Amino acid sequence: MSECRSYSLAELAARFGGEVVGDGAVAVQRVATLESAGPADIAFFANAKYRSQLTSTRAGALIVGRAERDASALPRIVCDNPYAYFARISALLHPARPVAAGIHPGAVVAASAVIDASASVGALACIGERARIGARSVIGEGVCVGDDSMVGDDCRLYPRVTVYHGCTIGSRVIIHSGSVIGADGFGVAMEQERWLKIPQIGGVVIGDDVEIGANTTIDRGTLDDTVIGEGVKLDNQIQVAHNVHIGAHTAIAGCVGIAGSAKIGRHCRIGGGAIILGHLQIADHVDISAGTLIGKSIDKAGAYTAVYPFEAHQAWRRNAVHLRRLDRMAREIHELHKRTEK
Amino acid sequence: MSECRSYSLAELAARFGGEVVGDGAVAVQRVATLESAGPADIAFFANAKYRSQLTSTRAGALIVGRAERDASALPRIVCDNPYAYFARISALLHPARPVAAGIHPGAVVAASAVIDASASVGALACIGERARIGARSVIGEGVCVGDDSMVGDDCRLYPRVTVYHGCTIGSRVIIHSGSVIGADGFGVAMEQERWLKIPQIGGVVIGDDVEIGANTTIDRGTLDDTVIGEGVKLDNQIQVAHNVHIGAHTAIAGCVGIAGSAKIGRHCRIGGGAIILGHLQIADHVDISAGTLIGKSIDKAGAYTAVYPFEAHQAWRRNAVHLRRLDRMAREIHELHKRTEK
Amino acid sequence: MSECRSYSLAELAARFGGEVVGDGAVAVQRVATLESAGPADIAFFANAKYRSQLTSTRAGALIVGRAERDASALPRIVCDNPYAYFARISALLHPARPVAAGIHPGAVVAASAVIDASASVGALACIGERARIGARSVIGEGVCVGDDSMVGDDCRLYPRVTVYHGCTIGSRVIIHSGSVIGADGFGVAMEQERWLKIPQIGGVVIGDDVEIGANTTIDRGTLDDTVIGEGVKLDNQIQVAHNVHIGAHTAIAGCVGIAGSAKIGRHCRIGGGAIILGHLQIADHVDISAGTLIGKSIDKAGAYTAVYPFEAHQAWRRNAVHLRRLDRMAREIHELHKRTEK
Repeated sequence: MSECRSYSLAELAARFGGEVVGDGAVAVQRVATLESAGPADIAFFANAKYRSQLTSTRAGALIVGRAERDASALPRIVCDNPYAYFARISALLHPARPVAAGIHPGAVVAASAVIDASASVGALACIGERARIGARSVIGEGVCVGDDSMVGDDCRLYPRVTVYHGCTIGSRVIIHSGSVIGADGFGVAMEQERWLKIPQIGGVVIGDDVEIGANTTIDRGTLDDTVIGEGVKLDNQIQVAHNVHIGAHTAIAGCVGIAGSAKIGRHCRIGGGAIILGHLQIADHVDISAGTLIGKSIDKAGAYTAVYPFEAHQAWRRNAVHLRRLDRMAREIHELHKRTEK
Repeated sequence: MSECRSYSLAELAARFGGEVVGDGAVAVQRVATLESAGPADIAFFANAKYRSQLTSTRAGALIVGRAERDASALPRIVCDNPYAYFARISALLHPARPVAAGIHPGAVVAASAVIDASASVGALACIGERARIGARSVIGEGVCVGDDSMVGDDCRLYPRVTVYHGCTIGSRVIIHSGSVIGADGFGVAMEQERWLKIPQIGGVVIGDDVEIGANTTIDRGTLDDTVIGEGVKLDNQIQVAHNVHIGAHTAIAGCVGIAGSAKIGRHCRIGGGAIILGHLQIADHVDISAGTLIGKSIDKAGAYTAVYPFEAHQAWRRNAVHLRRLDRMAREIHELHKRTEK
Repeated sequence: MSECRSYSLAELAARFGGEVVGDGAVAVQRVATLESAGPADIAFFANAKYRSQLTSTRAGALIVGRAERDASALPRIVCDNPYAYFARISALLHPARPVAAGIHPGAVVAASAVIDASASVGALACIGERARIGARSVIGEGVCVGDDSMVGDDCRLYPRVTVYHGCTIGSRVIIHSGSVIGADGFGVAMEQERWLKIPQIGGVVIGDDVEIGANTTIDRGTLDDTVIGEGVKLDNQIQVAHNVHIGAHTAIAGCVGIAGSAKIGRHCRIGGGAIILGHLQIADHVDISAGTLIGKSIDKAGAYTAVYPFEAHQAWRRNAVHLRRLDRMAREIHELHKRTEK
């Protein structure tokens, strides 16, 4: 939280649109929450839960929606989508740290690899034979990019990402530390009481503008490719099995597991810890709640949930025991119906 | 998907058995799915779901089971277990990329480590004091093998695997990137409102022919060892806590968590995202469904499940609210029974 | 399990307290379980489940609680908290392997980094600009510490830990391999059918005496910091999202996911695989059962659970189908009530 160039509200509105209300000459240096902002900060209001802070904030300026145009006396920018507006201002005020182009002498780069002159390859990174790294991409310390893998332009692979051989990564892709792209899918055949490994000879194809969190794993396909559509956003510790397809602009929260050959639509949102079983199809614009296991295909947009409501432990014990008697309970009710109808 | 040596059906049957039906001189270069196969490919039929593709496939040849002997006019190999047969052909047609023996000059190998002359140690790998790497084993880039740890013959540790000190890995073991073998188990004792660490002085012992997926963790034992039996197959992002034993030939899908001191039998299959609590015993030949929490020992082979069925969100809300009233509901039914019996 | 210095029971009691019963001159070299102990070992009894082993053990000496003072004829130390006592003796008998101070020539350390002379930086570690490593801390092989990050005194970062830029780690902190501290939180805003990245410009602050398991991820805050209180113990493969606060001395088992901005109290215990949704508050001294999803704030100490009880698969099928009919079932019961009241 350090950069020092400041911008006036008028300058910000000239770049990003919106209406300035109040003194457009007021300058801000940082973005902040309503609660922690000071006079040099611009804060944003995008969650009704924090409405009371609109009056108490010490921010120098605000970003608010049309409906809150007059909810504050502070200098402010009024816009349609304050959260997105905040994102844009934050990116302007807090740009990513620049990384010098060039290959660190401590990197290990195969002779046949093609590294764009504007790219950066960090210390102790390994780039395999015939691999390609595109313009302005930053390959962090200790990253491994396998033989024949391609990384597009303007990508950022943080330290200790592993990309196996034969994977294709688009442009403007961000991959966080510890993620593994292209490990073998979990393919085994049973033969005479032993598991026989199925070679995994497909690859992984990742579209443009994808972001992948820390310690997420995306396995290579068995025969064809595992495919992550453009604009997909994956959080940390997600497991994507072989031959999965994730449609464009789908967002998936942490700890989700997606089993082999599942096909997930475009513009879906999947909550943390959800499990999607294999060989399913999920339609476009499906929202899946956190902690929900999806065991059948979903062919219709909408929200889907399977969450067991928590209780104090003793109350849970009393209630949960009946789950194993539900069928009997249903039959008893049926019996009572018949009895009372007489 | 590149190798170019081709094999005739007759050659394949000579190696792997099965009956050739049709022209045994037909040669294939690759394996493929029924859907994507072309004339140089051999496809396989092992899942009834894809039966319609048996007639539409453009494959040059097929692998089919006895029951489908006459379900296609294509040249074909008829066998008992088409999926396993496919695995064997795939391994033949798509062999693992050969890796040259020797220690990369950028590796850091302790003076007292013993590396077989036929083994390969990649760039930026670290091999500790008195560690041993067996014949033909391939240690990938950035792998750490700790002091006194042993890796058997014909193993493959992909880039950025970590093996702590004092762990023993059998032969023909595959470990994928990001996995951590032998970190401290989660052992703490409460003393005066603070947690006291319990030293974890056991090790990890991994049997022959085990495969471990990406970013899986297997903790060392507290006093005795954590033990993974021969032929066990672990998918990605599995957590195996201290002192766990997993019996031979058990297969575990991604995102499973196994708590401390659980003992899992042989030939079990555990679905993705399942949780096994600590100090339990699971019998041999137990199948546990994805997403199921096992909170008690299972002493009998069979399939076990605890999955909350998902619904459209509004329907779920209407139904789930009653889970906290199940006990009352049961008492009401009982009351109605008594009342109607009068 | 190797160190050879032995201690008599009298020496141990002089250090750690407790009452020696029997021959205080008996010396022990190792700690062990009741079951596996031999004559040179001291075993402990802290779990009633293993009571029968008190008589069969071949241990040379025992650690027991007050209630078991006379439950064995072996030389023994009687104390209030045998498990904690065992932890202390184990740490004495099995000290951590000493690591020589100094910077390995194969490490990559920025010129402006400040490494205490008593610290150790392993081969292939990368230390960024202006980073600080405190006294006696051990930075393992392949660890990355980003620009401006600080590691306190007496810390241990095992191989291949990644700490991004601008993170602060207290003293006596242990972080296991593969963990990632300070990756970007999962912040996106929807704008015209595409996700816009929210820059994550907060940091991570980790208190003293924290332990973090293998492959755990702790994201940096969006604007403010993610905070892990002192004495917190995190197991493997835990996901801690941006802006989460975890109160002091809370212990969290493996595979737990904590969503953004959740505030967890002090002295809580969270079981494996639990999910805590975002923007919640959990009071102090709350215990959450394994596999439980917490979707609302908890303002009262106590134990909370939401676990679906497992059954043999066929029985589960019969019962679970009624979960989607619970509301109808409740209405039917209500109807029966009315009918029978007439």
